[in-house]
Amino acid sequence: MSIKVAINGFGTIGKRVADAVDAQDDMEIVGVTKTGPSFGCGLAEKKGFPLYCTFDDADRISSFAESGYECQGGLSDLLAIADVVIDCAPGKMGADNLAKYKAAGIKHIFQGGEKHALTGQSYTSSANHADNLGVDGARVVSCNTTGLSRTLVPLYEHCGSLKVECTMIRRAADPGDSKKGPINAIAPVLKVPSHHGPDVMTVKPEIEINSLAVAVPTTIMHVHAIVADLPDGHGLTTESVLEMWRNTPRVIIMSGAGDRITTTAEVMEMARDIGRKWGDLHEIFVWEDGVKLNGNRLYYFQAIHQESDVIPENVDCIRAMMNTEADWRASVAKTDAAISAYYGL
Amino acid sequence: MSIKVAINGFGTIGKRVADAVDAQDDMEIVGVTKTGPSFGCGLAEKKGFPLYCTFDDADRISSFAESGYECQGGLSDLLAIADVVIDCAPGKMGADNLAKYKAAGIKHIFQGGEKHALTGQSYTSSANHADNLGVDGARVVSCNTTGLSRTLVPLYEHCGSLKVECTMIRRAADPGDSKKGPINAIAPVLKVPSHHGPDVMTVKPEIEINSLAVAVPTTIMHVHAIVADLPDGHGLTTESVLEMWRNTPRVIIMSGAGDRITTTAEVMEMARDIGRKWGDLHEIFVWEDGVKLNGNRLYYFQAIHQESDVIPENVDCIRAMMNTEADWRASVAKTDAAISAYYGL
Amino acid sequence: MSIKVAINGFGTIGKRVADAVDAQDDMEIVGVTKTGPSFGCGLAEKKGFPLYCTFDDADRISSFAESGYECQGGLSDLLAIADVVIDCAPGKMGADNLAKYKAAGIKHIFQGGEKHALTGQSYTSSANHADNLGVDGARVVSCNTTGLSRTLVPLYEHCGSLKVECTMIRRAADPGDSKKGPINAIAPVLKVPSHHGPDVMTVKPEIEINSLAVAVPTTIMHVHAIVADLPDGHGLTTESVLEMWRNTPRVIIMSGAGDRITTTAEVMEMARDIGRKWGDLHEIFVWEDGVKLNGNRLYYFQAIHQESDVIPENVDCIRAMMNTEADWRASVAKTDAAISAYYGL
Amino acid sequence: MSIKVAINGFGTIGKRVADAVDAQDDMEIVGVTKTGPSFGCGLAEKKGFPLYCTFDDADRISSFAESGYECQGGLSDLLAIADVVIDCAPGKMGADNLAKYKAAGIKHIFQGGEKHALTGQSYTSSANHADNLGVDGARVVSCNTTGLSRTLVPLYEHCGSLKVECTMIRRAADPGDSKKGPINAIAPVLKVPSHHGPDVMTVKPEIEINSLAVAVPTTIMHVHAIVADLPDGHGLTTESVLEMWRNTPRVIIMSGAGDRITTTAEVMEMARDIGRKWGDLHEIFVWEDGVKLNGNRLYYFQAIHQESDVIPENVDCIRAMMNTEADWRASVAKTDAAISAYYGL
Repeated sequence: MSIKVAINGFGTIGKRVADAVDAQDDMEIVGVTKTGPSFGCGLAEKKGFPLYCTFDDADRISSFAESGYECQGGLSDLLAIADVVIDCAPGKMGADNLAKYKAAGIKHIFQGGEKHALTGQSYTSSANHADNLGVDGARVVSCNTTGLSRTLVPLYEHCGSLKVECTMIRRAADPGDSKKGPINAIAPVLKVPSHHGPDVMTVKPEIEINSLAVAVPTTIMHVHAIVADLPDGHGLTTESVLEMWRNTPRVIIMSGAGDRITTTAEVMEMARDIGRKWGDLHEIFVWEDGVKLNGNRLYYFQAIHQESDVIPENVDCIRAMMNTEADWRASVAKTDAAISAYYGL
Repeated sequence: MSIKVAINGFGTIGKRVADAVDAQDDMEIVGVTKTGPSFGCGLAEKKGFPLYCTFDDADRISSFAESGYECQGGLSDLLAIADVVIDCAPGKMGADNLAKYKAAGIKHIFQGGEKHALTGQSYTSSANHADNLGVDGARVVSCNTTGLSRTLVPLYEHCGSLKVECTMIRRAADPGDSKKGPINAIAPVLKVPSHHGPDVMTVKPEIEINSLAVAVPTTIMHVHAIVADLPDGHGLTTESVLEMWRNTPRVIIMSGAGDRITTTAEVMEMARDIGRKWGDLHEIFVWEDGVKLNGNRLYYFQAIHQESDVIPENVDCIRAMMNTEADWRASVAKTDAAISAYYGL
Repeated sequence: MSIKVAINGFGTIGKRVADAVDAQDDMEIVGVTKTGPSFGCGLAEKKGFPLYCTFDDADRISSFAESGYECQGGLSDLLAIADVVIDCAPGKMGADNLAKYKAAGIKHIFQGGEKHALTGQSYTSSANHADNLGVDGARVVSCNTTGLSRTLVPLYEHCGSLKVECTMIRRAADPGDSKKGPINAIAPVLKVPSHHGPDVMTVKPEIEINSLAVAVPTTIMHVHAIVADLPDGHGLTTESVLEMWRNTPRVIIMSGAGDRITTTAEVMEMARDIGRKWGDLHEIFVWEDGVKLNGNRLYYFQAIHQESDVIPENVDCIRAMMNTEADWRASVAKTDAAISAYYGL
Repeated sequence: MSIKVAINGFGTIGKRVADAVDAQDDMEIVGVTKTGPSFGCGLAEKKGFPLYCTFDDADRISSFAESGYECQGGLSDLLAIADVVIDCAPGKMGADNLAKYKAAGIKHIFQGGEKHALTGQSYTSSANHADNLGVDGARVVSCNTTGLSRTLVPLYEHCGSLKVECTMIRRAADPGDSKKGPINAIAPVLKVPSHHGPDVMTVKPEIEINSLAVAVPTTIMHVHAIVADLPDGHGLTTESVLEMWRNTPRVIIMSGAGDRITTTAEVMEMARDIGRKWGDLHEIFVWEDGVKLNGNRLYYFQAIHQESDVIPENVDCIRAMMNTEADWRASVAKTDAAISAYYGL
């Protein structure tokens, strides 16, 4: 039986999650919401996703028809027919929406723009799938936390303890966002240490981590500069760390020198080449020649596609909450294979 | 019977043209060349395109196998089995390659980085398809000339004469190119007027056109600011010009205000949404609310996706040269429908 | 006797105008205003400019002392002791401020952010100094209009008529402004033609001019790409146009190839080298090798330092309004010599 | 008696050092070199600095006169009349130049683009002035090493030991350099850890330090994100660390929130306001609200003006090598007061 999934907010994240869910054979999109008629409504119709209004207001609902879009009803109507809702609304609406989801008695997934405290339960495939089996609500963590978990959790599991400092060099705006700057400046996040790193502890509390963050004038990918202290007797080498990550799902290891991928621009070009929609890269990109283990201290760089690394995690989270797949690696393999097939890759 | 197409140079343009040819039912890729083993070889193999070496040198050819790629031979071997070769080599190699193509007795298409004088024959679908029927060699004009032709040729055909000034605001580097600047400057092309506009006259000599050009710090899309003087008695209005372009293939008209597409960033985001590979936009983008006809003087803005607007033109040019489709609109319709189907759009 | 000048708004423009006035021997700064205590108050004190509050509110006035700054009173107090006020307040406050200035019976100068209609009188040294002799209020036109006037007015005066199209490639934000984007996009101004060019007609109505405008991701200098149609019998050559501009105040002609100044970045570096404060360039920069007269049609590029080209014009405008110097060239020469001496250049 | 100083290379660094030396009462510029006639020759003449040719070639020397510049001779002529030469030549010429300086028997100072090994002696005022008293040759360390030393050395001197990790977010090109990119990417330095941090150990070997580095699309200022581990019993607090730096020469502490200086763009705007030539900032900028001491671990951000923080260090280095001032704080105070007076600040 197919899990019925609603997407509340068909924007940057919502449109991608809808595709990823649509690609799976054990779940289906029963509807997506928009606040009003717009270009995105046509995209939903083209995909065959039933269209609902974010609000239950009759006037708003009827406004869709005036622009030639068929609207099936308001959010309440959509929640009534779904098993789980993925909240992809803009920030600051979490508390209001949570109340609606609870009132409708529906399972719910929030995104990393919301705080852990909203549901008290956070999720990322590689860190705590098992903790989320059967829960009613969860937050899929942010792109940065997802990225850190992908490389740190296997290290932690091998070593038994881990102390991490991460400097995050963040893209200042998304590619389609031309309002935000800076054009020619570096902007440090003056909350020191920043909130970004410690968010990893919402999914893997045993990892000790802090971070510093700056925003820079680029629209593509965050870069993490990571210094991780392993415990004595870790038994690892630079090469064995790379091997560990090669065996980790959703991590790509390539060489700056060998593959001529020396910047985030070239990483994104590779992603365009391999043909995923929007030029997305669900995987964390680690530069093979940017990893170095000196004694107990590990240095490495990784790049995060801020628009898409969390997309497949939403699919896995649905399976955890619906309790249909207890093994995270099995869910990840199923999710990713279905997405590849969906895009003909 | 299928036209056998060779791609000499499987890079930014070559990989896109290969896909576009592969999508058609009346032509097929018989091979693509690379200078040596690299990431792009894997892409070719994945697509099932036979791989050849750009050179006939035996050592170079065998170097592919050492990296695990199957190389079918040198350029000469490829030319021997093809009906037409599309030259997508980097600039400055045109003259050398032309000699090879002539020696092999094969039809050949160059790209807009080469000068008109190389073949004495230029091509763009909307301007001079008929002039290229059965020719042995042609140059598909540059992204800018292609873009100008799309909107100016129908205007010219309606009016019978046209005088144009175009200021080109050019992206300084492609998205995957992180070597080039400037980071924070505007660079005028001090050859005044610039060579860009007059290149239109290689495909439509009757249009009088000049241009000024600047490079600016962006990697996505050129913008043309165009002032066109129509002859007395043109009989057009702003709205009828828009209607003319709405009926022109490979031109998209959208509204900055209505569709919230106010910058090239948002145009590219729309292109990612509609799902073409690499986020490409084969069409010229004209802002509906950026067109104004004042008396005889027409003002408008258009945006050009520098990496992709010429891609489908190469397919049409093959049909012209092979003399398999004399009607440019029929060829364009066939090309574009096949590409859409190929990507499942 | 020294003209007593008040600066209402000691920000980006105000601080520069204050220096320029302070440099002259026929005028003096009697006070500058700030809305409250801040870094700029210290700058004013260091220069010895008496500090006033933008408002007459007693609480606000006393707030300065709490931060260790000596505030002499409110705007009314300042207006009472000045002969002329230069309004350098942010936009949208023009109408309110105009009422205050009229109530105080003081002469007043607005900046180009305000519309011509506010005072019905616009000013730029090269175009209409004589029209502003003795007037009570005027608007010093914007950086773009000032720049266009510098090169177009002498052309017009030689030719007797002039038809101009200008494409403005505009910096999207000022150097100290890190909030605004776009980071990676071109943003056309979809009001076509744009309001920028026709503003020249507020100071020289005989010049026929239209414009198109785009914003690009840079913080330094606007560039104008200009196409000007001269009347038959103009008698000019490319070289004689250059000679005309060499003899025009506040125009610099340099060569991209010869002086290795090929972009706005290098223009700004030259300005830093010649030592004016803030690295300002009061002059319009014309590329010698970017000027070309083809028959009656003149093509050229010029670059505008958006933060500073209007600064000396404010000084000249004061002399016009106070009727102390009727000859614009004499005023300009006096202003510029004093500024050079002030900065030890 | 005045120390006679030659500047070999009157470019980005050379022109600034020449001004700084010219400002002092115990030293004087006896000549500056250029490779040939250019815009910079006029700047030197305007300042009254005698002009020499970088080479001893008679043809090159006479070429200056052809362009209207008075050239006093070749490098050898200049070295013959100087006590010390400051090498501001572009990189890769160090070894050749060193041989010339030794042959001329003249004291010599190289810049941080050269390696420590060239002279075996590195210098920065705050770290090792005393070690350079009377030496014949030294390297003034790079802008980054200078910046790190300014804040780390006083910490080290208080604590007795210090372990540091620094992530350097580097500007990719200088403001006047419009050739280099990237326009829209982050480029990690894949040598991990990078060479930048350990260079501090050439002037203060007791500080243990490593670094990671990335280049980002901005032309103004490097930012350092620093994590420093203090030893047990350090006795410091966040506030006492700030107080220590407030008492350190050439360090500025300002508040992001309080002074509205939240990015490097606003730091540079402040530098333009305080009126140093070129808008330079010789001081290291530390954000007061970006410093946090958690137990033994200190987090902080600092910004480095890459074009100018080393300028006054060259003056101090001259005094050390000539053995005219043994106390680094006395030299720094004298240098900085003279520069302020020179620019009328």
